[in-house]
Amino acid sequence: MTTISIIGSGNMATAIGTRAAKHGHAIELMSRNTAKASALADQIGHGATVAALGATPAGDIVIVAVPYTSAVDVVTHYGDALAGKILVDISNPFNADASGLATTPDSSAAQEIAAAAPEGTPVVKALNSVFGHVLAHDTPLDVFVAGDDAAAKAQVAAFLESIDLRPLDTGGLGMASVLEWTGILLMGLARNGAGFDIALGAEVR
Amino acid sequence: MTTISIIGSGNMATAIGTRAAKHGHAIELMSRNTAKASALADQIGHGATVAALGATPAGDIVIVAVPYTSAVDVVTHYGDALAGKILVDISNPFNADASGLATTPDSSAAQEIAAAAPEGTPVVKALNSVFGHVLAHDTPLDVFVAGDDAAAKAQVAAFLESIDLRPLDTGGLGMASVLEWTGILLMGLARNGAGFDIALGAEVR
Repeated sequence: MTTISIIGSGNMATAIGTRAAKHGHAIELMSRNTAKASALADQIGHGATVAALGATPAGDIVIVAVPYTSAVDVVTHYGDALAGKILVDISNPFNADASGLATTPDSSAAQEIAAAAPEGTPVVKALNSVFGHVLAHDTPLDVFVAGDDAAAKAQVAAFLESIDLRPLDTGGLGMASVLEWTGILLMGLARNGAGFDIALGAEVR
Repeated sequence: MTTISIIGSGNMATAIGTRAAKHGHAIELMSRNTAKASALADQIGHGATVAALGATPAGDIVIVAVPYTSAVDVVTHYGDALAGKILVDISNPFNADASGLATTPDSSAAQEIAAAAPEGTPVVKALNSVFGHVLAHDTPLDVFVAGDDAAAKAQVAAFLESIDLRPLDTGGLGMASVLEWTGILLMGLARNGAGFDIALGAEVR
């Protein structure tokens, strides 16, 4: 059992927190909206707690589960409280109609978050290419992962495996933009016949 | 049975031609290297033929199976000989180390090919997110498809289904760049532990 700190109280925070708590992790929720976070902690159960946004997270792994448009501000707000933590960026920096990315071509949401975090804080991109409601089903899924820090990536991978996900490494944090494009791929498939209950995966053929 | 014209005589031409011939299609190979094309036609068998590069293709569906760096030149060389045909772009416009794309962020190889083809020629992006040697196994696979012309896309989808592939529509040709990024995703996965025998897919979960 590990303590997992989740910043946010929306759909992804709900899906990840619920799934992780079911698999025996202690969940700490940190949200600007403390009433919503308290209600979510009650819903998650299994002893889930709430802490103030910006306080030092209890978990070694901190999942940034706020929308892309808030993520850099939130990480900046935490400042040195995130020193020594592993940040997991799950954001999808979609443009207005989710047909492309709002980031610049040479960067990614994950790299923007890394730049806003205390120097040396490892950032791992993960969980952005799966729909929250599909993640909530608690069935096995493949998830794509990227990050520069091998130890941090291994620790996140172990967490993902513990909640019945199969982490598939795609390389360094420079691959984060590719995972963000994969979010657009998922949207394109969902909107053009495959439907919103699909999940991407990779199999040996 | 349909006649499928394939421009090229490399790995992807071999994999697609072999698979399509096995499933009863008539294959026409068109290559700058006529000796290589003739040898490939013999290898494919099932009455596969060779025609001159730039001649009017026999098939309604013309698969452009040359490297990205040659694709626009080859399509330009054909000129009006491609009028009335459906072009299938399978290219991966990878940069030197296959860590990103050589195209500009607002375009794609497929759109560059469309611009070089006779006006109104439908272009369908397909088959770029699967390794040639995996395609050659002749096992069922998912393939991602993009294109603006619904009738052309349906005709290509029917061909793909006929060779035991499952076409998954991702939207218009504006999604071609996303499929090209998906080629980079596949490379990232293959290089970071998943290996080169993998194929991407989507399943309802």
